Amino acid sequence: MSKANILHQDTVALDEQTGALIIIDQTLLPGTVKLLSLTELAEIREAIYLLRVRGAPAIGVAAAIGLYVVMLHSAAKDEAAFREAFAAAKATLAAARPTAVNLCWALERMEKAIKRGGTPNELLARLHDEALRIRDEDVRVCRAIGENGLTLLKDGDGVLTHCNAGQLATVRYGTALAPIHVGVEKGYHFKLFTDETRPLLQGARLSAYELMADGVDTTVICDNMASQVMKNGWVQAVLVGCDRVAANGDTANKIGTSGVAVLAKHYGVPFYVCAPFSTIDLRVKTGGDIPIEERPGEEVTEMWYQKPMAPQGVKVYNPAFDVTEHELITAFITERGVLYPPFEPGFRKAFGSSEGEEPV
Amino acid sequence: MSKANILHQDTVALDEQTGALIIIDQTLLPGTVKLLSLTELAEIREAIYLLRVRGAPAIGVAAAIGLYVVMLHSAAKDEAAFREAFAAAKATLAAARPTAVNLCWALERMEKAIKRGGTPNELLARLHDEALRIRDEDVRVCRAIGENGLTLLKDGDGVLTHCNAGQLATVRYGTALAPIHVGVEKGYHFKLFTDETRPLLQGARLSAYELMADGVDTTVICDNMASQVMKNGWVQAVLVGCDRVAANGDTANKIGTSGVAVLAKHYGVPFYVCAPFSTIDLRVKTGGDIPIEERPGEEVTEMWYQKPMAPQGVKVYNPAFDVTEHELITAFITERGVLYPPFEPGFRKAFGSSEGEEPV
Repeated sequence: MSKANILHQDTVALDEQTGALIIIDQTLLPGTVKLLSLTELAEIREAIYLLRVRGAPAIGVAAAIGLYVVMLHSAAKDEAAFREAFAAAKATLAAARPTAVNLCWALERMEKAIKRGGTPNELLARLHDEALRIRDEDVRVCRAIGENGLTLLKDGDGVLTHCNAGQLATVRYGTALAPIHVGVEKGYHFKLFTDETRPLLQGARLSAYELMADGVDTTVICDNMASQVMKNGWVQAVLVGCDRVAANGDTANKIGTSGVAVLAKHYGVPFYVCAPFSTIDLRVKTGGDIPIEERPGEEVTEMWYQKPMAPQGVKVYNPAFDVTEHELITAFITERGVLYPPFEPGFRKAFGSSEGEEPV
Repeated sequence: MSKANILHQDTVALDEQTGALIIIDQTLLPGTVKLLSLTELAEIREAIYLLRVRGAPAIGVAAAIGLYVVMLHSAAKDEAAFREAFAAAKATLAAARPTAVNLCWALERMEKAIKRGGTPNELLARLHDEALRIRDEDVRVCRAIGENGLTLLKDGDGVLTHCNAGQLATVRYGTALAPIHVGVEKGYHFKLFTDETRPLLQGARLSAYELMADGVDTTVICDNMASQVMKNGWVQAVLVGCDRVAANGDTANKIGTSGVAVLAKHYGVPFYVCAPFSTIDLRVKTGGDIPIEERPGEEVTEMWYQKPMAPQGVKVYNPAFDVTEHELITAFITERGVLYPPFEPGFRKAFGSSEGEEPV
């Protein structure tokens, strides 16, 4: 595992001493850096739902470690009771957020790890190892995405990113920001533009925070300024993460991503999706089949604000994600290389040639 | 002058009793409706700079009435002193905001009105009449834009708008929202989507406020959700205002407008700019020649918020406007009709055929 860890703390971790899931509470950033130590199912589910831990890969790792932690503290005395408690905990966590495929993917992996029978202690040991394997894979995959993405950038490039697909969205490195962090390690200098990413401001709060922590020249813009920034010629590449990629390459990611892609195409800027293979869901043919989470309107009208931001009672449309059609995507940067269109054959080939299996 | 006045109060008015400029303080909306009564040059300039009164046409009317009011309260005893004070006040107001052409246009009209010599009282009377003429023209022009724009809409249409180019941006009716308000008068039902319009949220605060006051079905979205809303097929037309239009049709308007235009083109939604002729500046060949105001970064990182919205010391790019290239504009809706490309001959013909003169 690589040494680099910009925040001197994994975004998601297991405290072996206390048997707790440790996360950085991202709702308090950038003002306060607070670690949460979680052992209860309800608080782990809430941490995912309320975005204390967010970002598809980090959610996956948090769900895996969280599921282990919940079972570690469960009172199940025999295998049947253990499996019953496991199924209930898994279902609760799976329902916390609908769009990111990594959440289900990680939970399914945890379930497979205990397919074979055993005592509660034996099952627990297998859950422990699988959770840490998922965590270690995440670090390795993100590092590889960083190396692969860096081949597409030049020293001095301006790069625009949307939301946060950085270390704070994974265990380390991030996906979209991995090429930046790996580049910094190797002496590259980039000029980053982070869309603030309304309504929850992950770009302004989180991407800006971790980029500045890594010494990167960082400029926050409102989402609606991306057009002007591209027109100014300040951006040589767009790097975004993804929550779920359909077989044809249509990509669900933070709301606004599809708009950035349309702009990038219009201004001739390459638009790269940084995608761990765990986010590619071949069961889903196109983006139209990806469920899009809608969140409370208050996130738009009230959260973060001293005064009401909109009239009382106004209707709000608050989808958390959108789908970027594959035609708008220049390439996927994955841990197994950079994939250009047509995407589906490339995905299938890359899955087929790998040692791993397709995500379920 | 039409009777319709959704807010039961002109956005900008002259109080003849006290000799004061009356404006609705738009920085307090939608929470508080407060009228300001202004007579001092410094507070009128500040009201324009701090966006207590905003929107290109409203700024023009406020500057005209404001200039009259300042001179009304001036101590100038003879014509020379009067002209000196006038020039100083005009220069101060002209510098308050650089992008909107209406500000200068209105101030130039006021200057022309006192070209001929006279006693301070005679000059004052002419300034009074010219300011009210500018106000009355604004109402008439906006009504005409409403009638013209309505010909492009069908009952039940979904319409997306950016920022506020409504009654609150003019004296009555608005420009972009005039077709909506006039349509409501005539029994049309529209579904309005208002981009919240970061950083100052004029769409969420002001457009939503006046649309709801007019009984319109109104949904606030974050700016980055416009792509999804268009993809959903919810929008049959985009209506925006403008701060300055170049001879070739390139249009400066609230930051983010160009992004909306790129999206509209991508999704095949007509993109209409509602433009009083006073915003068309034939002296400016293309959008590249329009000065774009940059405003303090704190508007992005701190205003409106309970907690810091971004890390301390982060760089911010905060342009208040952008330019939408004429290729992205379906038509201009003006008080003299709807103009389709090529725009420049249409502008020139419309200016030439009118009784009025070109804006200086």
